[in-house]
Amino acid sequence: MKMELWFTEKQTEHFGITARIKRTLHTEQTPFQKLDMVETVEFGNMLILDGMVMTTQKDEFVYHEMVAHVPLFTHPNPENVLVVGGGDGGVIREVLKHPSVKKVTLVEIDGKVIECSKKYLPEIAGKLDDPRVEVKVDDGFMHIAKSENEYDVIMVDSTEPVGPAVNLFTKGFYAGIAKALKEDGIFVAQTDNPWFKADLIRNVYRDVREIFPITRLYTANIPTYPSGLWTFTIGSKKYDPLEVSDERFHDIETKYYTKELHKACFVLPKFVADLLK
Amino acid sequence: MKMELWFTEKQTEHFGITARIKRTLHTEQTPFQKLDMVETVEFGNMLILDGMVMTTQKDEFVYHEMVAHVPLFTHPNPENVLVVGGGDGGVIREVLKHPSVKKVTLVEIDGKVIECSKKYLPEIAGKLDDPRVEVKVDDGFMHIAKSENEYDVIMVDSTEPVGPAVNLFTKGFYAGIAKALKEDGIFVAQTDNPWFKADLIRNVYRDVREIFPITRLYTANIPTYPSGLWTFTIGSKKYDPLEVSDERFHDIETKYYTKELHKACFVLPKFVADLLK
Repeated sequence: MKMELWFTEKQTEHFGITARIKRTLHTEQTPFQKLDMVETVEFGNMLILDGMVMTTQKDEFVYHEMVAHVPLFTHPNPENVLVVGGGDGGVIREVLKHPSVKKVTLVEIDGKVIECSKKYLPEIAGKLDDPRVEVKVDDGFMHIAKSENEYDVIMVDSTEPVGPAVNLFTKGFYAGIAKALKEDGIFVAQTDNPWFKADLIRNVYRDVREIFPITRLYTANIPTYPSGLWTFTIGSKKYDPLEVSDERFHDIETKYYTKELHKACFVLPKFVADLLK
Repeated sequence: MKMELWFTEKQTEHFGITARIKRTLHTEQTPFQKLDMVETVEFGNMLILDGMVMTTQKDEFVYHEMVAHVPLFTHPNPENVLVVGGGDGGVIREVLKHPSVKKVTLVEIDGKVIECSKKYLPEIAGKLDDPRVEVKVDDGFMHIAKSENEYDVIMVDSTEPVGPAVNLFTKGFYAGIAKALKEDGIFVAQTDNPWFKADLIRNVYRDVREIFPITRLYTANIPTYPSGLWTFTIGSKKYDPLEVSDERFHDIETKYYTKELHKACFVLPKFVADLLK
């Protein structure tokens, strides 16, 4: 009988997922977090930060498509895009599918995430070397604080609000994003799940609504994330993601996002909608 | 340091969920399956059949509401309803929220599921004693085979296609359902998840489409079910769930279902829609 290795993430104190792994590809304590890359049987290579699943080869497309395409199809002409976090490069890959985009800046605090993703997640990180991409290993909070009237779309692809990402869930950060955006800019942030983190969603939504005239929440199914139901919060100065005309959509290759889902993903289960009241 | 008890369901050979439990409330080998009721910390009491989570106190509302209300609001006047399986009584509770319903028959093969649910899941099973409900401990497949032109709506609330439920995923069963329904009848069946059971969804959809003029697939998020994304397949003789007029919806108390979600839940992620082609 062969030994079996299983990785378990406690998604809450009392509940988790467990995945059989073939081997550990990399493990390291970076200056910012514990970084592990394992090869799972079910989901392929899996990036884990501080014990939490960040992305896997099998289901990464959901998160990356849904972060990128909802705001990018809402904005009529996104040219200059900023991604905060997201060192695996998956959001960048999706952003580059939009021909209007002239430049994408990635600001990732932990260079080791980028390095490790390039090595073990090449189909996710492969576009980080595209000439339209500028990669900065820097603090996203500080980068935002220094920027003004610069970006059409900002995407916050952070970890959970523990460790290096804790500043990225504050009202001050959202105010900084508003300043960093152009006058018709849009931002989106991943905002965890409604089953275990209802307060986080409620608080972020309230903070964003106090700063942005248009605030919306949408969801997507990500099997390796807690509860399988992930939320994203949009703050927009001018364009409403619910009012995108049909002709604005152009064909891009996706596995999850569709133009029909662009609208349906904002229709929330009642208990989620009730969080926002 | 206290001992910790954890229940783990291998949802696939190589992936699963794990839940800390306070205690085992009941465990028994019935004539049909292994039945366990445990008290979990995160999801309250949890019914487990053959090692698979069937329902929990915390998230049961999603499954039960979505099985019941989508077909019941699609049919203009559902009076006589059949539930195959569903011994926990959760679907029955939701069906009874519709004032047009005069009678609901529950055909559950395993009387022990009913008994144990009444004892440990009273807020789910509590409506099984309603005067409009007839409970039959019987084989659902045989009950369908004997029925003709009788029901307005049939709901198949089965376990996975292993053990006692294997016949409930066959084309012969769907043909029997068509016969058991009135000429404008509708049925719905739970049809597992698209991440690990793509073939099952594809096969059921193909079979149902060969029998029913209107066939539709919809989804809901259930955190304790594999992948968190569950599918339901509808076969309908006359009424299209996508063409329900606004005035047909009446107010009922729900935590997941809304009339807006009634339509949005049919908008599928691209990789799921592709299964049906």
